[in-house]
Amino acid sequence: MISSPDKKGIIARMSSFIYDNNGNIEHADQHIDSETNTFFMRIEWSLDGFNLVREDILPSLQPLIDEFNMQCSLHFSFMIPRVAIFVSKELHCLYDLLLKHQSGQLKCEIPLIISNHAEARQIADFFNIKFMEFPITADNKELQEKEEINIIKEEKIDLIVLARYMQILNGSFVREFPNRIINIHHSFLPAFAGKNPYRKAYEKGVKVIGATSHYVTEDLDKGPIIEQDTVRISHRDSLNDLVRKGEDIEKIVLGRAVRWHLERKILVYNNKTVIFD
Amino acid sequence: MISSPDKKGIIARMSSFIYDNNGNIEHADQHIDSETNTFFMRIEWSLDGFNLVREDILPSLQPLIDEFNMQCSLHFSFMIPRVAIFVSKELHCLYDLLLKHQSGQLKCEIPLIISNHAEARQIADFFNIKFMEFPITADNKELQEKEEINIIKEEKIDLIVLARYMQILNGSFVREFPNRIINIHHSFLPAFAGKNPYRKAYEKGVKVIGATSHYVTEDLDKGPIIEQDTVRISHRDSLNDLVRKGEDIEKIVLGRAVRWHLERKILVYNNKTVIFD
Amino acid sequence: MISSPDKKGIIARMSSFIYDNNGNIEHADQHIDSETNTFFMRIEWSLDGFNLVREDILPSLQPLIDEFNMQCSLHFSFMIPRVAIFVSKELHCLYDLLLKHQSGQLKCEIPLIISNHAEARQIADFFNIKFMEFPITADNKELQEKEEINIIKEEKIDLIVLARYMQILNGSFVREFPNRIINIHHSFLPAFAGKNPYRKAYEKGVKVIGATSHYVTEDLDKGPIIEQDTVRISHRDSLNDLVRKGEDIEKIVLGRAVRWHLERKILVYNNKTVIFD
Amino acid sequence: MISSPDKKGIIARMSSFIYDNNGNIEHADQHIDSETNTFFMRIEWSLDGFNLVREDILPSLQPLIDEFNMQCSLHFSFMIPRVAIFVSKELHCLYDLLLKHQSGQLKCEIPLIISNHAEARQIADFFNIKFMEFPITADNKELQEKEEINIIKEEKIDLIVLARYMQILNGSFVREFPNRIINIHHSFLPAFAGKNPYRKAYEKGVKVIGATSHYVTEDLDKGPIIEQDTVRISHRDSLNDLVRKGEDIEKIVLGRAVRWHLERKILVYNNKTVIFD
Repeated sequence: MISSPDKKGIIARMSSFIYDNNGNIEHADQHIDSETNTFFMRIEWSLDGFNLVREDILPSLQPLIDEFNMQCSLHFSFMIPRVAIFVSKELHCLYDLLLKHQSGQLKCEIPLIISNHAEARQIADFFNIKFMEFPITADNKELQEKEEINIIKEEKIDLIVLARYMQILNGSFVREFPNRIINIHHSFLPAFAGKNPYRKAYEKGVKVIGATSHYVTEDLDKGPIIEQDTVRISHRDSLNDLVRKGEDIEKIVLGRAVRWHLERKILVYNNKTVIFD
Repeated sequence: MISSPDKKGIIARMSSFIYDNNGNIEHADQHIDSETNTFFMRIEWSLDGFNLVREDILPSLQPLIDEFNMQCSLHFSFMIPRVAIFVSKELHCLYDLLLKHQSGQLKCEIPLIISNHAEARQIADFFNIKFMEFPITADNKELQEKEEINIIKEEKIDLIVLARYMQILNGSFVREFPNRIINIHHSFLPAFAGKNPYRKAYEKGVKVIGATSHYVTEDLDKGPIIEQDTVRISHRDSLNDLVRKGEDIEKIVLGRAVRWHLERKILVYNNKTVIFD
Repeated sequence: MISSPDKKGIIARMSSFIYDNNGNIEHADQHIDSETNTFFMRIEWSLDGFNLVREDILPSLQPLIDEFNMQCSLHFSFMIPRVAIFVSKELHCLYDLLLKHQSGQLKCEIPLIISNHAEARQIADFFNIKFMEFPITADNKELQEKEEINIIKEEKIDLIVLARYMQILNGSFVREFPNRIINIHHSFLPAFAGKNPYRKAYEKGVKVIGATSHYVTEDLDKGPIIEQDTVRISHRDSLNDLVRKGEDIEKIVLGRAVRWHLERKILVYNNKTVIFD
Repeated sequence: MISSPDKKGIIARMSSFIYDNNGNIEHADQHIDSETNTFFMRIEWSLDGFNLVREDILPSLQPLIDEFNMQCSLHFSFMIPRVAIFVSKELHCLYDLLLKHQSGQLKCEIPLIISNHAEARQIADFFNIKFMEFPITADNKELQEKEEINIIKEEKIDLIVLARYMQILNGSFVREFPNRIINIHHSFLPAFAGKNPYRKAYEKGVKVIGATSHYVTEDLDKGPIIEQDTVRISHRDSLNDLVRKGEDIEKIVLGRAVRWHLERKILVYNNKTVIFD
């Protein structure tokens, strides 16, 4: 994935680089942000018969990267990302991710579930996943998070998914994993940020509720939005009905965000996301 | 339409009142707000063969109203409401209302269009509707609004629709017409209240935009929400694309709100709305 | 729940019957089919302090039933319905129902899972539900279904849910349980009835796919529709993507249909459904 | 726009062709149909400073076209397409197209409205568009259509939009304008093809209705689908309500299809459409 100040010839030069080295482009997608005149590109090509060995690709690209002043990241599809799921007492998103993983929709390993409560242990056992409980209090939070960071590093985790994890992570934790923590917030952000979004929506009398998945930054509920969706409600819906209807949307929205991240389809720019096709 | 502290027997007593006077109930809908234990009912019955003349209905109901401590309003379907439309330079909502009126979807008369600009005059002429231009400046606003109030009263207007009217009405105007001014706001409230909601949505990087119709109160963009809807956008959509996609939603959302109001299906309670079926 | 040729006074008489016996109406909803002039009503009232014992209610209503020529059914909310789930190899709908049941969204017991394959056994075990495998061939189908009918009766099952059960039930089976078998079909019926709806949708090049839950009748995929929903697709979506997107919709649509049935909110009429609020 | 049997190097060669001639690519989008292994590409580049004059572009591309066995079409954005609208008595789609054109959303000229009735004449006059009435009977149909073809050719019409034109065009007419006639059908095809789709949907008891825009082929309602959308309905909606709700969807779906066609974003392949971003 590439971002660059928009410049004539970048598609030609990149695609020729691949072609000249006998690569076959399987997917390519471009986007130009017309406000900042920035160019974004994602190219996926097959290494079958490619002239360069893996470790030579980036060095060989360096002249192009310099010439076009690109931000460039390179991923190999045989590297299966490792995911840790954080969860509290609400288990529907956790279940949904595990089932989507089981059915092959999420190309990753899920070696670790972390929780500040015990509720998810039984599920973790059923799915044969290591479960670690870190109860959080105001006093032990920093210490516990340090411990969590250590384990995440030991386990070589690539992506952390907050699947209804009801603790606010400290800045020190968030800074360790930039654009590598995905949260699901149970409202249509920027409306109803923070606690109890369903209650706030109920009291406001909105006619549509939503869910938002986003990368976690130090600003609570303000990180780059990856995906959102909404569902209609009416005056007949009680607060419980909102929760029930919302859960279906949360699962869908979080599932999409995690899948796109794993497929390397998300590029963060300017606190917004480009989602390549 | 009735609201009342929930009390046993209210449906039986109201429906018996109508039946005993030889009325035929054509529609009835109830709702109980479980948080405040308030009962809401809308009953529509035919006056064919009804034993009471119109002016006797409310007095005859008075004992029931007192007993159940009801809020009660009575409307006759042969009274066609009169609507004034306020508009500025964006004409899509105005056009849509006029076309829906023309095709019989909105049971009302539309004798008056008021604008702070001249753009809508030609349309008003084509549809044979009186058009009045009231240019608004900081200095003349209060005076002009007084004039508008006078005309609205002269014209016996029942409902004012702000169809993308880009002026904030003074409190003195709003207080004259409680629950009788419907606005369309081009965002999913409470997100992006105030000016330039599409630009704010664009800059925030949301993946869904919306529109909200609500009754106007003195708190800007905070009146009871009548209807909302949303549409998906992506990073590919420019600000202009948001405007274009939003316009289709604005028309639909405003059209529904106006129709429901005209059909007496909206009951305002606690700064929220009950929309009867 | 009541259906009746529309007749003056029916709401008054029914609600008075309840009120006169000291019942408190908690929900009431009516509908008039204007084409056939048929009246439908659902009334839910509390038996706290009600003057009649349960077995006397229907006999006491009999004069009203006769007078208005009503179809009338009476249910008690303390009677928890018993549900059997039929499933084949695709397990996402089964999982979803079990999780919604576990979280309290479905007020029922689920004592039995029946399958023509072995895949669901492990899940059944995890959720402590009796699992029975009935492999089906052209030869043994009638016999196996007879066996299934016996077990369903022994287990006093009130509702059968076909959660992606890929066998067509014989008429003899279907006739045993009128309006008591709910199926999920993975298309927007009446489009793409029968086998392989996702492949048919893919080949047709539609831009929206859907799912339909309906009561099973002897006409394949033609029973009364309970609920439908749709999701957008594009030319970029492969057949696998359609399956993946469709699964989320199937779960939602089936979950709603089962919940409404359990809450006694569905009335079948003229091969269509009335869904009371 | 290009389609080609998928072959290594096509992106590199095409983009280099443009770059080598000093063109600047403004948009590019690719798609590979994995079932047929066909490659599709749309490239939009600026002619500012381009080395080739317009008439030399295609000849210069010929070697590439031959080498990759491409289907290739070339359009210039300064060529404003000319559109004729066909309409019968329902005018909402006509109005919507004219308003979207007026507000600049549709980059085209609309010099001609043709109808088999007189209802649209007044609108045509208001928008200063030539209106021609061709009453159609079984007897005069072929003759009238011949006349229409002549006028369409005289007027150099590029696109014909059937905006609720309730006549079935003869094969001889359709064959004159392959992939240049867009129809709006008021159902979710392939469900409810042919006459009276709203009535059929009403009688079937579906819970969602839709609209479909497609290119017209000789097979009635079976041409390549360009766009579809849906809206929820319930048992409370009368046939008139379906019509009203459907109209809003029809306008949106037809508006999108016409815009995409005018922006050269649609590629027809295998009786399906690729819609480039």
